[in-house]
Amino acid sequence: MTSARKMGLAVAQMGPVNSTDSRAGTLKRLLDMLREAKGRGAELAVFPELAFTTFFPRYWMDQSEAVARYFEAAMPNPDVQPLFDEARKLGIGFHIGYAEATPDGHFFNTAILVDKHAHIVGKYRKVHLPGHADHRPSYPFQHLEKKYFEVGDLGFKTWDFLNTRVGMCICNDRRWPETYRVMGLQGAELVMLGYNTPSRNNSYHEAPHLPDFHHLLSIQAGAYQNAMWVAAAGKVGYEDGIHMIGGSAIVAPDGEIVAKAAGDTDDEVIFFNVDFARCDGPREYMFNFAKHRRTEHYGLIVEQTGMAERIA
Amino acid sequence: MTSARKMGLAVAQMGPVNSTDSRAGTLKRLLDMLREAKGRGAELAVFPELAFTTFFPRYWMDQSEAVARYFEAAMPNPDVQPLFDEARKLGIGFHIGYAEATPDGHFFNTAILVDKHAHIVGKYRKVHLPGHADHRPSYPFQHLEKKYFEVGDLGFKTWDFLNTRVGMCICNDRRWPETYRVMGLQGAELVMLGYNTPSRNNSYHEAPHLPDFHHLLSIQAGAYQNAMWVAAAGKVGYEDGIHMIGGSAIVAPDGEIVAKAAGDTDDEVIFFNVDFARCDGPREYMFNFAKHRRTEHYGLIVEQTGMAERIA
Repeated sequence: MTSARKMGLAVAQMGPVNSTDSRAGTLKRLLDMLREAKGRGAELAVFPELAFTTFFPRYWMDQSEAVARYFEAAMPNPDVQPLFDEARKLGIGFHIGYAEATPDGHFFNTAILVDKHAHIVGKYRKVHLPGHADHRPSYPFQHLEKKYFEVGDLGFKTWDFLNTRVGMCICNDRRWPETYRVMGLQGAELVMLGYNTPSRNNSYHEAPHLPDFHHLLSIQAGAYQNAMWVAAAGKVGYEDGIHMIGGSAIVAPDGEIVAKAAGDTDDEVIFFNVDFARCDGPREYMFNFAKHRRTEHYGLIVEQTGMAERIA
Repeated sequence: MTSARKMGLAVAQMGPVNSTDSRAGTLKRLLDMLREAKGRGAELAVFPELAFTTFFPRYWMDQSEAVARYFEAAMPNPDVQPLFDEARKLGIGFHIGYAEATPDGHFFNTAILVDKHAHIVGKYRKVHLPGHADHRPSYPFQHLEKKYFEVGDLGFKTWDFLNTRVGMCICNDRRWPETYRVMGLQGAELVMLGYNTPSRNNSYHEAPHLPDFHHLLSIQAGAYQNAMWVAAAGKVGYEDGIHMIGGSAIVAPDGEIVAKAAGDTDDEVIFFNVDFARCDGPREYMFNFAKHRRTEHYGLIVEQTGMAERIA
């Protein structure tokens, strides 16, 4: 399967993880998908954001309650150790998202990259936290990432992994082109991302087909504009009664979707035999950054955070 | 048609402008489309890049010959004055691209914004010049923008125009997310762009459907990720025997194509009654830049031009 420029890549879309589901039951589902990924030739399996639990930022609670129920104080820990053990046994790497509580009292929406020896070789903490920090009882559900998490303090790093360079981002990060660009500039040829995206916006009306469209538009544009592969793993179906878009996908450096989950309910593994040589042509010509980018005209991107006010 | 937050917007896709076509003949086509745009309720008509001539960067020649044949030493000038006169008579603004030779000997791929009084109120000079500066006789055609033009020195400015804020970019600029972001940060609610895009890449193989897909992917992502309208006007059909993609389109702030040219040969005007209020929801929530952007993690975008080398 593997050559110097290829990678067997699996994306594991998860059905709902309900509040009433047991940790052990969820872990068994992850193990089953890890085995399926390995069986199909994968060297790396990409799991969703906050994969061990329900998407708890939809609930208003005290931070202490959230930490007790949903955060991981260490990684690995006894609850999740079997996933690491199975990865080492199978000889497969994985990427997974979880809520991280640090020893010194910080809280992040985090993803890790784990190699086939079950060593954590990379960590990412979500930078673009969506939603709000205040309780909004009039909303059909909350989106409290700005309450439970701090903005990631690690930036968009990249790592040498399986003969390529890879990076990570999480959910809302994928809508911001800066995310891919910062990793693309580092030479990343693969970006992994996990997500939990409700099918319905909680704050204003938009047409029901748009959340799926926006997800795919964002990852396809990010892949194309940086000539990189993108592997996106989400949850799908009614989680605690709130429907999540699926659309987990592998996107090629030309922006085309080459594998996409079909289901709307169950756990599902998709696979593609990724060839990093497909990054080369566009990186030499259309997206030869050194030849074409003009940083002297990009200053506002870092000098100004918010948008100028609309004129009256 | 007009309210404080609406604009009648036309995009004029052009059939080929061949090397053998007369300037007067091409100008007549532009006048016809300007009248059609006005007749359909447009307050602004968007024309393509290098609209007065063939896409001459496909030919190798001396700069002096290119200047004599294809560049405008003043704008307006007697050759194009009828377009300005007609705009004033009709009371319609327009955007158009041309090759600009400055009095002090500089050369740019330029676009202007002209108001309904035929005053030039904005100018943009192309920043992302694609192609090459050297003669490549083995290629099926040349792409010599880096030979004939200098990199634009005006950046991505925006202007108050018809009760909104607008910006401009040209062709290859649309593939670079920095383009839209710099204008979005200034509050632009409409970006106009002209283009000439061959259906076939001149330097390496890619599938025939990809140029059209990449064009639409780029303008849709730019619109969505900045909650802005995008109006894209190109040429279509066999110009001097080289086929150009059409796909001229108006894209809404949710990334959806709301009007798109259908033809593959002839001049064609498309129209949409643009409502800038559609920018408001996403700018308050999903793309509330002030709340969500994290400039401290974007530094590489301006600090580094080229991509890091791929690891061995």
